[in-house]
Amino acid sequence: MKEIKFLDNLVSSLEKLPGVGKKTAQRYAYYIVEKMPLEHVETLAEELIKTKKNMKHCQCCGILSDLDICEICSSTYRNHKQIMVVRDTKDVLAIEKTGQYNGLYHVLGGLISLLDGISPDDLNIDSLEKRLDGVEEVIIATSFTPSGETTALYLEKILKKDHLIISRIGYGLPAGGDIEYVDELTLKRALDARKVSK
Amino acid sequence: MKEIKFLDNLVSSLEKLPGVGKKTAQRYAYYIVEKMPLEHVETLAEELIKTKKNMKHCQCCGILSDLDICEICSSTYRNHKQIMVVRDTKDVLAIEKTGQYNGLYHVLGGLISLLDGISPDDLNIDSLEKRLDGVEEVIIATSFTPSGETTALYLEKILKKDHLIISRIGYGLPAGGDIEYVDELTLKRALDARKVSK
Repeated sequence: MKEIKFLDNLVSSLEKLPGVGKKTAQRYAYYIVEKMPLEHVETLAEELIKTKKNMKHCQCCGILSDLDICEICSSTYRNHKQIMVVRDTKDVLAIEKTGQYNGLYHVLGGLISLLDGISPDDLNIDSLEKRLDGVEEVIIATSFTPSGETTALYLEKILKKDHLIISRIGYGLPAGGDIEYVDELTLKRALDARKVSK
Repeated sequence: MKEIKFLDNLVSSLEKLPGVGKKTAQRYAYYIVEKMPLEHVETLAEELIKTKKNMKHCQCCGILSDLDICEICSSTYRNHKQIMVVRDTKDVLAIEKTGQYNGLYHVLGGLISLLDGISPDDLNIDSLEKRLDGVEEVIIATSFTPSGETTALYLEKILKKDHLIISRIGYGLPAGGDIEYVDELTLKRALDARKVSK
């Protein structure tokens, strides 16, 4: 008996979660069969199916939601003249947590990456172009990585129009970042992004 | 929108897994709704319920199994005169992986711990005493911790009988253990457990 065979199927299902290897999956499986009350297991199983089946993307901005049009797009309190372009819904949550932005979003669903075979056609870029009537500013908020840069440059190029401001979020030293330990690329960006004191 | 509300129930169900906090649960939930194929989610939900409901403990030794009598207890190839006492089924698997033991097991289901309110009555000790007919050796394999030591001393005391050998697994330097870095308690045990070279 090298393993408990009747746990095998559960273990291999749990291994499909992100970052979960065999050891962690076994730990979860043990805990589930030995310690977790049956009602919790039943709730987990129900929620898995229910949440998965109710999942949609907002037809306007692409945010993950259970509504056809998400609460941000349908809000009358938000500034509909600003659109921030991000990779996915997790980025939206990160920005929302700052409480510093009151415009709308547009979720690309990925970043352009030739290595991974992701071209602009695979992303929600068409739907972005169709949303630009009445919009004054598009803020590109892609990550500081090769894919993020490529995507930003591509968007800057195709969105260029009169009367539309295209901006990018600032790059530079992170909070708590000690100059001594920050990498060259970040420092270079921080220098380029310097502001003249008034 | 600080969080995606429709994921909340799934997140709080996933948080019940061992070592899974809010951030990890959110990561799993996102992955499940955005990336995991529906069929995998359905299999996971089914396996959770099926495995949980089929779970039993072997009526003889207490190992986690889906059988009334586990494959070790019912095996005719194993030495039924030796019983190794361990805390839980995970310990059985660790010993089985070594391939060095061919006897039976007895799973206590915990260790005596006054701090956590676990007394000998809470453990499968009665059923161990009832299994001792025809047994020649009981090997106590509890961990090198205060609870493990207490349990071992208690078992040594109550199991003491003529013709029954009671042994404990060896304690000492672990594989790759450098004397310079090993703690005093382990070194003390390693010295006590020294063997005279022939």
